[in-house]
Amino acid sequence: MNLANKLKEIIPSDRVSTNETILLNHSRDDSFHPARFTDVVIFPEEKEDIIEIIKFANINNIAVTPFGIGSGLEGSAIPVNGGISLDLKKMNKILEINPEDFLVQVQPGVTRVQLNKELGKYGLFFSVDPGADATLGGMASTNASGTTTVRYGMMKDNVRDLEVVLADGRVIRTGGNAKKSSSGYNLTELFVGSEGTLGIFTELTLQVYGIPEVITAARAVFPTTNEAIHAAQSLLTVGVPIARLEFVEGKTLKYLNHVGNTNYIEDTSLFIEFHGSKGSVIADVELTKKLFNQNGCYQLHFETNSSGRNRLWEARHNSLYALIHQNPGKQVMNTDVCVPLSKLAEVVEFTRKCKEESGLQGDIIGHIGDGNLHAGILIDTKPSFDMEKANQFNEAIVKFALLCSGTCTGEHGVGLGKKKYQSLQHGVALDVMKSIKNVLDPNNILNPGKIFDTTEILEEKTKNVLDQCPAGAEAE
Amino acid sequence: MNLANKLKEIIPSDRVSTNETILLNHSRDDSFHPARFTDVVIFPEEKEDIIEIIKFANINNIAVTPFGIGSGLEGSAIPVNGGISLDLKKMNKILEINPEDFLVQVQPGVTRVQLNKELGKYGLFFSVDPGADATLGGMASTNASGTTTVRYGMMKDNVRDLEVVLADGRVIRTGGNAKKSSSGYNLTELFVGSEGTLGIFTELTLQVYGIPEVITAARAVFPTTNEAIHAAQSLLTVGVPIARLEFVEGKTLKYLNHVGNTNYIEDTSLFIEFHGSKGSVIADVELTKKLFNQNGCYQLHFETNSSGRNRLWEARHNSLYALIHQNPGKQVMNTDVCVPLSKLAEVVEFTRKCKEESGLQGDIIGHIGDGNLHAGILIDTKPSFDMEKANQFNEAIVKFALLCSGTCTGEHGVGLGKKKYQSLQHGVALDVMKSIKNVLDPNNILNPGKIFDTTEILEEKTKNVLDQCPAGAEAE
Repeated sequence: MNLANKLKEIIPSDRVSTNETILLNHSRDDSFHPARFTDVVIFPEEKEDIIEIIKFANINNIAVTPFGIGSGLEGSAIPVNGGISLDLKKMNKILEINPEDFLVQVQPGVTRVQLNKELGKYGLFFSVDPGADATLGGMASTNASGTTTVRYGMMKDNVRDLEVVLADGRVIRTGGNAKKSSSGYNLTELFVGSEGTLGIFTELTLQVYGIPEVITAARAVFPTTNEAIHAAQSLLTVGVPIARLEFVEGKTLKYLNHVGNTNYIEDTSLFIEFHGSKGSVIADVELTKKLFNQNGCYQLHFETNSSGRNRLWEARHNSLYALIHQNPGKQVMNTDVCVPLSKLAEVVEFTRKCKEESGLQGDIIGHIGDGNLHAGILIDTKPSFDMEKANQFNEAIVKFALLCSGTCTGEHGVGLGKKKYQSLQHGVALDVMKSIKNVLDPNNILNPGKIFDTTEILEEKTKNVLDQCPAGAEAE
Repeated sequence: MNLANKLKEIIPSDRVSTNETILLNHSRDDSFHPARFTDVVIFPEEKEDIIEIIKFANINNIAVTPFGIGSGLEGSAIPVNGGISLDLKKMNKILEINPEDFLVQVQPGVTRVQLNKELGKYGLFFSVDPGADATLGGMASTNASGTTTVRYGMMKDNVRDLEVVLADGRVIRTGGNAKKSSSGYNLTELFVGSEGTLGIFTELTLQVYGIPEVITAARAVFPTTNEAIHAAQSLLTVGVPIARLEFVEGKTLKYLNHVGNTNYIEDTSLFIEFHGSKGSVIADVELTKKLFNQNGCYQLHFETNSSGRNRLWEARHNSLYALIHQNPGKQVMNTDVCVPLSKLAEVVEFTRKCKEESGLQGDIIGHIGDGNLHAGILIDTKPSFDMEKANQFNEAIVKFALLCSGTCTGEHGVGLGKKKYQSLQHGVALDVMKSIKNVLDPNNILNPGKIFDTTEILEEKTKNVLDQCPAGAEAE
């Protein structure tokens, strides 16, 4: 009997699919990483489905790769070992909204937009905004963040509790509903960001916020990148509680104007947003005007109504698609390093230099309030395209970030793309991660081949990567 | 050869002590938990001392219990298995202050006040304030928090990176300097709060903040507890970024006035503090006045200069000592539950009722912006004192908090006092914690007997504790 038929004996057969189109849709994500067909796709509708599937997979050594909406950018959901793709989109119930405690309980397949639509009825919102309408389970699995993280934090800061099915079918809750705790080990934050390699999330308790009395967005235009970065740093230094703080290159604004029918000045810009009471936003705006003027800002345009504001953030979020739209048939390799704020100007400069030298096309955009920078590079799957050149570009930027004590991935996750930098970034700590993986998933059935290969020999890898480190990637 | 002499062969002999007074000082903390003499106290001066000691202890199955200044309130530093008390106070160097990135690197024996004195020169401060001048290593080990957590978070939110010596002498770094990361498992937050059971911290990288332009403190006096709690909740609901929000009973104010020569009105009060720019603090104060008036506040007294403000917070921090001062010869058992905000009024009421029924003496104080409540109960080590009654009181409050999806410890840690509630609070997740402990410290040398006993059989414990749960402890 084949795998799909066996699985149909365990859970209702309409939750098991081997339809070719469905298999194709689960073979890839939004990244450039090569697709890999899986054997079967499961659509669980309740926790018990997952428990049974996992138990079966564990006994029979079958890979289980969780899948949300497939908006990942590092291949975390690509089932590289085949087996089962576990699509959680039918587990999309908002289980409880608790406005008094600013908490919601959701199933993992609920999407960000779906949740915010419902929360709006209570005057609440969920803060993490990666752009894509991802599932909350997927966002927790990669510790996603985005434009509002500078004020409201990453997923890890906003997940209060998880229900998790472990590799052997045991079910745990990692946290509780209290705002703080010193009880036991912090399993919640161990599981957030583990990309499905330690367990399958079946329920999430999330912290939400009251919709601010006043929301004001603005575009600030600067003559140079350095002035824009210094202006951003000055805001953070004096502690303005800015809610969004995005860096956009002039070239990107050109694409955005073309795609979105806007007429933003096509020069280095910061897209910003203020949240607060009327009085506090007025105070924050005044201070910002002063600091930006001191740093060469030559236009500060406010979007006070919701349509102008929505247009602005839609433009920002569509920057990746705008780039593709201008270059039909191409894909984008998106770098994702995050560095300490003092290294921001340097890493932008280094990225530009590498791009120019490589002759690659693309642009730079960044959540610069967090030191997180994306260079979107156009790539082509045609054999004539020099993929090695793109990989070298990505690697040079990662190594530069690591030399600045930064990280190879600020928000997209490790997946397939950043595996090769794990030993360089984490050193001996990677062995500790592997020990934890091994004790919780000894048969390596949970999203195998992601973050690290459990069979790697750490010492050799570290040595090799360090040997290959080019001189040009040094921080100073 | 005895243990001390063997250790003197490994590290310089002046770092090894068996002096009776020193042994006594390392046999206890600030809690009521019984003292336990250790065999030897080590004062390492560099990381290499710790590595050598740990390797020796691991081979020879000797317990190693880290010790800061001994200000813990749950016995986490009491060496219940004897062996080595590892006193880190000589590793007290501030290694680097990086104002541009709002980061500092310190050794674990640096204390909070020591760090803030140095940071002040740069216009910076470290936010976590548990009252005691604890070491930062100790604070990280229990995931300490305190009066400023409502705005700036717990230790886990402010530790960016740790250097840790593992049980086998390997040294790892858990994080990096970037503000956010999705790379690998989040080991930093696994180690923070692990109370020295997973490794010894040898270096901490901490996030710090700019000293706000304006700091304004105030006392708000209310006729009833419920009105004070509702006023606090209303502030949080509208999102006033309050920096401290403390609940103090009228009775406690009586002690404080007596000890501190103040003349605060002896009625239920909130001690609050605003941080921000001049404009934003004015806006926050105005909104607070309005909300407090609507909730029955009959006096709102501002302390705008630093001496009045320091007097206020000193009084708040001294509340525990004021209670002891009024009752010479007594000790304090301090409860530490944390509950969702909606359950706050109920848990205060329940705590009062239990206290009245038990006839125990003491008062209630709370970081109510976080839902964290302390009932300080006077206890006596004389045999005539009914210790069982105090334990039952503590247990009733813990069980009430757990029925509200809260935690048995908001900030003091599990140590010895909250071990018995771990299976009730964490269920099967406790087995996962034990698996992690076992894989990282298979010989159980690191602070054995804390958080959990590795030999416990989980299922039986859970069943027993649940069976004993009194009907009166139900939330609804």
